[in-house]
Amino acid sequence: MKQVYLDNQSNTKMDDIVFNSMIPYMKDYYGNPQSIYSLGQISKDAIEKARISVSKLIKAKPEEIIFTSCASESNNLAIKGFAYANLKKGKHIIVSAIEHFSVLNTVKSLQKDGFEISYVPVDKEGFVLLDELNKAIRKDTILVSIQHANTEVGTIQNIDEISKIVKEKNVVLHVDAVCSAGVIDIDVEKSKIDMLTFAGSVIYGPKGVAALYVKKGIVIRPQIDGGVQEFSKRAGTENVPAIVGFGTACDIAVSEMHKNYEHILKLRDRLINGLKNNIDYIYLNGPQHDNRLPTNVNFSIEFVEGESLFLLLDAKGIMASSGSACANKSLKISHVLTALNVDVAVGQGSIVFTLSKYNTEEEIDYVIAEFPEIVKRLRMMSPLYDHFKTTGERMKAGPGTDYEHEHNHNESCENI
Amino acid sequence: MKQVYLDNQSNTKMDDIVFNSMIPYMKDYYGNPQSIYSLGQISKDAIEKARISVSKLIKAKPEEIIFTSCASESNNLAIKGFAYANLKKGKHIIVSAIEHFSVLNTVKSLQKDGFEISYVPVDKEGFVLLDELNKAIRKDTILVSIQHANTEVGTIQNIDEISKIVKEKNVVLHVDAVCSAGVIDIDVEKSKIDMLTFAGSVIYGPKGVAALYVKKGIVIRPQIDGGVQEFSKRAGTENVPAIVGFGTACDIAVSEMHKNYEHILKLRDRLINGLKNNIDYIYLNGPQHDNRLPTNVNFSIEFVEGESLFLLLDAKGIMASSGSACANKSLKISHVLTALNVDVAVGQGSIVFTLSKYNTEEEIDYVIAEFPEIVKRLRMMSPLYDHFKTTGERMKAGPGTDYEHEHNHNESCENI
Repeated sequence: MKQVYLDNQSNTKMDDIVFNSMIPYMKDYYGNPQSIYSLGQISKDAIEKARISVSKLIKAKPEEIIFTSCASESNNLAIKGFAYANLKKGKHIIVSAIEHFSVLNTVKSLQKDGFEISYVPVDKEGFVLLDELNKAIRKDTILVSIQHANTEVGTIQNIDEISKIVKEKNVVLHVDAVCSAGVIDIDVEKSKIDMLTFAGSVIYGPKGVAALYVKKGIVIRPQIDGGVQEFSKRAGTENVPAIVGFGTACDIAVSEMHKNYEHILKLRDRLINGLKNNIDYIYLNGPQHDNRLPTNVNFSIEFVEGESLFLLLDAKGIMASSGSACANKSLKISHVLTALNVDVAVGQGSIVFTLSKYNTEEEIDYVIAEFPEIVKRLRMMSPLYDHFKTTGERMKAGPGTDYEHEHNHNESCENI
Repeated sequence: MKQVYLDNQSNTKMDDIVFNSMIPYMKDYYGNPQSIYSLGQISKDAIEKARISVSKLIKAKPEEIIFTSCASESNNLAIKGFAYANLKKGKHIIVSAIEHFSVLNTVKSLQKDGFEISYVPVDKEGFVLLDELNKAIRKDTILVSIQHANTEVGTIQNIDEISKIVKEKNVVLHVDAVCSAGVIDIDVEKSKIDMLTFAGSVIYGPKGVAALYVKKGIVIRPQIDGGVQEFSKRAGTENVPAIVGFGTACDIAVSEMHKNYEHILKLRDRLINGLKNNIDYIYLNGPQHDNRLPTNVNFSIEFVEGESLFLLLDAKGIMASSGSACANKSLKISHVLTALNVDVAVGQGSIVFTLSKYNTEEEIDYVIAEFPEIVKRLRMMSPLYDHFKTTGERMKAGPGTDYEHEHNHNESCENI
């Protein structure tokens, strides 16, 4: 059966070059980087070489990169690490309403320790309302954490403008760039970003490794205490092969990014137009024109239910992700679509395709051919569609979604 | 040049069978375990299969295993996670004086949040003083964290006796079993252990993965907040290949443990006797007879300095670890040797050899042949030795080591 992998924001297939670069550090160079003998020094040198490669992707200095085990850990380290190291400065933190769960649940956890959190709303395309951000900053605000691009709807924030607002008030800015790093240019110095999260597993690198950029002078408290690894900011034996692979992935990203961008953007627009032209009552979520990730397509399809859609797609070898809170079967949609004010009934049939450099036109055309048939089949079984076709009226959805409620359930489909 | 790797407590060479088991999950099965499509389910199934294998090594139930990125993370999660989830029960924690830095620096960090820590002393072989432990437990004691076996001197604690003392007073027991898991039998149910840390990279498995066993009913607060992975106790995209490799390593450990034990024990005693018989003024640290890890040899060698010793050994292809606080050049010895009351001057020339199933008699004989020559060469350059030979008197060492002081420096050579 044909296999079309379109869940590249969850994680990408590893590049063979990355894989090959890791092998020696899995088989032969197993020395502990903290040891004094040559075998350990080989590991140490490999880590420092990878640190240079990783820093270059975001135009940082190598000594500003802390390796962690995943983007969730980086987000936790940035937010908790900064919050607990700067208790005297204040206890107010600002995030956007559409952050990843590793940011939202982290600030929720900080609330237990007396921190106050403000959630800045976004417009219907997912752009942070800059006036609201500006108004939200208080005298005791210590940190603003806003993602560069959104996992689910692909909105690329105007991070320079956000940074300008935040820095004017002398507040520290953390940026979750998991979805944008390696896809679009990032320059932490030019954009005046203080901390930035990015990961290996979504840029054709290995799982089990991510980075937190921490600008020189920003003080954070380690979240994993122990040895002196990672400038005493993150203890634990270094995952040398994964760090090496991450370095290779960043080298490749730096050299291929613009070429990949063009290729992926073409596929994205082909997919958007192909589905729009072949399916009725289908709505693109997120930015309609500019500032959308080239990798992201998010549609809400009326009169279909998410889960059935994915099962039928899987039967055709098409792998995509649910935009809705997939762990829960109730009439709820994701916190992102809620924040974008997407109608609950429509939002239930949401699907996210995320593209990679490995996708081809042929694959996209296969989806464009198969997907409308699946939608047709599901609608034939749908009482909602039947009602609509007979009466021309939409049935009302159940109880509306509630952000806090969903959040409490700690749900997450796109995991980083 | 001959290469003799004797730093297996830092980490072991990965077993080829482990490596091969990881490959498919690095190359082909890259789906996110949280996704609904088949490729994701393959990852999910692989994780659950590994969880069973990992649980069997310590005779736990699969649902009691939480995968983390390293043993340091597991120790942090156990201690901080339990402490913050049980604030109402009390704020007193007990550890032994010879714990790993990922325990010692974690409880130190908890002190900032108002926790009180008691350090239970050990005897001169490194055994926890059970009477002292018993006396240290207070009404507000919530947690005791004691390692099963010591990294540096190989002391295997009587964990059943410790557990009996702790459980009689209804206190929760966490055991750092990084050095013992896969080497000697562990049965968490029989030994009534509530939480237990062990890792992949020291049992011929991959780096970047460890486990925390948490007995059903014990409540901990996640330290990495985010998605629903690992029963919502540890967020972040699962490191599938590493988890699979850890599972394979545990399978192998279960089947090979007793055979390996005999082999390694024989090598250990050969090395101990070989060095003792060929070097003067050499002292075995840790247990002199029973309850010593088969993998551990720790000697203090008078009139030599640690660093030079390692450099000359490395030149001969012999890789060992420093028992002293290697990051610091001052006249200090490790907190473990300090706790064992090892003389400062003697302790400076300490060396730890840790053995694996891959070591051979021939390798040990090579060390026995080369090592005395190196010691001889170093002593020839030593003014201390010269003074001793001339006068028969030992020169006094510099200022004594101080546990708190070293601890502040956050030093660690053996990193987990």
